[in-house]
Amino acid sequence: EGQIFCLFVQLRLYNIASSFLSFGRFTRQPRLPHCADMYRLQSLATLTLDTLNPQVKAVEYAVRGPIVIKAGEIERYLEEGGTKPFSEVIKANIGDAHAMGQQPITFLRQVVALCTFPELMDSPSFPEDAKWRARRILQGCGGHSLGSYSASPGVECIRKDIAAYIEQRDEGVPSDWENIYLTTGASDGIMTILRLLVSGKDSSRTGVMIPIPQYPLYSAAISEMDAVQVNYYLDEDNCWALDINELYRAYQAAKLHCQPRVICIINPGNPTGQVQSKKCIEEVLHFAYEENLFVMSDEVYQDNVYTPDCQFHSFKKVLYEMGPEYFNSVELASFHSTSKGYTGECGFRGGYMEVINMDPEVKAQMVKLLSVRLCPPLAGQAAMDVIVNPPQPDEHSYKQFRQEKSSVLGALADKAKLTEQILNAVPGIKCNPVQGAMYAFPRIFIPPKAVEEAKALGMQPDMFYCLRLLEETGICVVPGSGFGQKDGTYHFRMTILPSIEKLKVLLGKVRDFHIRFLKEYSALE
Amino acid sequence: EGQIFCLFVQLRLYNIASSFLSFGRFTRQPRLPHCADMYRLQSLATLTLDTLNPQVKAVEYAVRGPIVIKAGEIERYLEEGGTKPFSEVIKANIGDAHAMGQQPITFLRQVVALCTFPELMDSPSFPEDAKWRARRILQGCGGHSLGSYSASPGVECIRKDIAAYIEQRDEGVPSDWENIYLTTGASDGIMTILRLLVSGKDSSRTGVMIPIPQYPLYSAAISEMDAVQVNYYLDEDNCWALDINELYRAYQAAKLHCQPRVICIINPGNPTGQVQSKKCIEEVLHFAYEENLFVMSDEVYQDNVYTPDCQFHSFKKVLYEMGPEYFNSVELASFHSTSKGYTGECGFRGGYMEVINMDPEVKAQMVKLLSVRLCPPLAGQAAMDVIVNPPQPDEHSYKQFRQEKSSVLGALADKAKLTEQILNAVPGIKCNPVQGAMYAFPRIFIPPKAVEEAKALGMQPDMFYCLRLLEETGICVVPGSGFGQKDGTYHFRMTILPSIEKLKVLLGKVRDFHIRFLKEYSALE
Repeated sequence: EGQIFCLFVQLRLYNIASSFLSFGRFTRQPRLPHCADMYRLQSLATLTLDTLNPQVKAVEYAVRGPIVIKAGEIERYLEEGGTKPFSEVIKANIGDAHAMGQQPITFLRQVVALCTFPELMDSPSFPEDAKWRARRILQGCGGHSLGSYSASPGVECIRKDIAAYIEQRDEGVPSDWENIYLTTGASDGIMTILRLLVSGKDSSRTGVMIPIPQYPLYSAAISEMDAVQVNYYLDEDNCWALDINELYRAYQAAKLHCQPRVICIINPGNPTGQVQSKKCIEEVLHFAYEENLFVMSDEVYQDNVYTPDCQFHSFKKVLYEMGPEYFNSVELASFHSTSKGYTGECGFRGGYMEVINMDPEVKAQMVKLLSVRLCPPLAGQAAMDVIVNPPQPDEHSYKQFRQEKSSVLGALADKAKLTEQILNAVPGIKCNPVQGAMYAFPRIFIPPKAVEEAKALGMQPDMFYCLRLLEETGICVVPGSGFGQKDGTYHFRMTILPSIEKLKVLLGKVRDFHIRFLKEYSALE
Repeated sequence: EGQIFCLFVQLRLYNIASSFLSFGRFTRQPRLPHCADMYRLQSLATLTLDTLNPQVKAVEYAVRGPIVIKAGEIERYLEEGGTKPFSEVIKANIGDAHAMGQQPITFLRQVVALCTFPELMDSPSFPEDAKWRARRILQGCGGHSLGSYSASPGVECIRKDIAAYIEQRDEGVPSDWENIYLTTGASDGIMTILRLLVSGKDSSRTGVMIPIPQYPLYSAAISEMDAVQVNYYLDEDNCWALDINELYRAYQAAKLHCQPRVICIINPGNPTGQVQSKKCIEEVLHFAYEENLFVMSDEVYQDNVYTPDCQFHSFKKVLYEMGPEYFNSVELASFHSTSKGYTGECGFRGGYMEVINMDPEVKAQMVKLLSVRLCPPLAGQAAMDVIVNPPQPDEHSYKQFRQEKSSVLGALADKAKLTEQILNAVPGIKCNPVQGAMYAFPRIFIPPKAVEEAKALGMQPDMFYCLRLLEETGICVVPGSGFGQKDGTYHFRMTILPSIEKLKVLLGKVRDFHIRFLKEYSALE
């Protein structure tokens, strides 16, 4: 208990302490009064917690929140020779595949390296299929250089490649390259579309429907833009499925105090890992059509589907199959990224969105908004191009590419299964199948005594649990409260990205910890 | 006249037309009424110009505005075999060096290519000094990969390199690496700091002091965040110097309707090209200190100083020299970028900001905000590292690096001089010396008859002028009204980036056009 209280105090004191430690050198010093300066003695800095933009203050983002800061501190402590009951911190908090040892796809890196340093075009160690892709990308760049700004929506030939990829993925459903916008990761696209949609005051303020649990980019963006968060709860008892009745309930309840104008869906789910059925998507789209909602479909995990009975259906394809009535009217933005899938290229900050049925005048406004930020990073655009335009069976690099891709996806499928199995064998933990994406989101039983203790510390019970897990095992996961969950239920999100060996160790430690934790707090009752 | 009217109508019709042309396929079609759907017939799309976020609507960004869209249309027209009085469009609207043919710095690209494709570490064609830098950067990356997210403020060793660079640049003034934040270009950093500072309602709403003329990122960000723009006018008769009395005037006037809390300075100036004297910087900092203003110092052109009697002084160094009273209290953020200087790597979207005297609690809030966006692109961070950690005299790559760097900067200095000289020889054009940055911002005389004609078309006179320049010569420059200017004065901004041969042609065409234009409209009087 003392230890946890210490942790809590540490967290609370983090800011205050940092003013004396890390930031000491530049911290405002007490000043000697002199004549012209007397009145300033009362004043603090211009920008303080009191004067800070209140919308910034309201933002929360658990994936890199206090528990992750704490993990970093422990890591540094270990590096400096400190001792803990473990030798390393395992960061299962964030979907960062390369940080967990996943190797890049060779072909993707070859193309981006060729674009970066075109002298390599003469090198015999680079394959021709990579070279022609790099040449083609560079021909689309100003001065044939990755160092030029692109048009704000992205390089034209890359937009065309993306449209072709979507048409193929969706078995012929038309995709217009002028509806494609490259983005700085998917987050950037999601923020852009939300920014357009937020308007109105008081009860006409834009309501944004989001799943609970959700990826906290959504809640953070909603806070930052001062929109109204409208929660619809996923059905944990039904593999986190989206229940259409719950959508109607949430919508009707929200209409009393805001104007719901957009519905966000994450498919496959983050943090929940479910893959939506076609029927469910149809229901959502029909609902959006009926209620005149803009649909934002976060499909960054479209290549991450693991269970044989599940299949990724794009919202756009389902919309098309519902007929022109729907396909020509529902406003839909879907998002993709270089960061997930089998490439895991988070650091490139690449991504795109496809936006259909957007009012042309609004589109012009959006392009204007994008143009202020100039353009997404060109290396990320190039990486995106490789993802949508990979080696074909008749090309030299195909074999290696296919082997690397299936090796990554195969390992993820194994780890998804393994994670579910081991967690479900632990008393007091229940984990839905990880059908897709990169996370398990198990429900954990926290004994009432532990809940009480956490509350006495002013902490969410699952935060208390995750902090103890971190302190005792070195495993860093994110409390369910950072994603949202039904009142009285507790979860954590962990990635399935560590290598299979490390994942087994990690899951074993979680099991042992959980059993200890249950025992400790049940003994108290 | 008919031609200009046509252009105008074209611009006005741009959005409407696009709904029938480029966006045609996905435009909402008239639908046959059926029962459950009747009420929807009256409704338009969810997101229309009426429901769009009004702050987005208010944004303007001339550098990629209507004249640039028009230039793109003419380019396509020429490509498709159309004829004009010229054979190519010369885009002197945007500071995009590589698009104008500037070659990348070899060493920078070598390091980034090595980071992207580490197999190249074995290649004898890459020098060791590039390899060790790449190895060092990769050691700072998760999984030693550019594909990992970095910490939100950037890779630690790169932050340290930047701090060391600043200390050296500022002749020993201390720089703490924990005050350094990598950004996605300088624009991203500027937006982040402004976002923190915007708060309050009505007369307590944050006022942001910006120079006029300004780089329109500032006015766009202010609109987007619904802050209050407070203009202070640079003194055109005095080489666009900042006049401290004008600062006080602007501040006092603004206090009546908002709360000025931040002052933005662009040094060297964009679009105005002046380099601020040390004395002027001292005055600004004293003013900020007195009035308790946060200082944002946009120093992305710090390496672009051309005239021997001018020197770049960083705001931070000047602040330090004013004594600890100032250095320990004035809140200052300064911004740098990979996009300008001698590298011109716009497409990498690299940059950093150094923030001093920020309240530690606010700093924690800023890091939280940055963490929602995950991290700046890693290739851009790597490029930034090379800029602050270039080859040293005892290293293999030094000679080539120095030669490439001085060749770019020497050519820019020549072009700055040439531009000023040729423009000043044209009757009715007056151009201040281009002391730094990458732009000339000449004042142009527009005859009253032309002003009248423009106004009749509902157009700014300098927009009218620039559109005719584009239509008649293929030269794309940005009207002064996009940057702000004193009422009744007219300007345009052109970059000095085209090759010297092309620049001579361009300036000759501007001269001939201007003389024709004066003649045409004087003849009318």
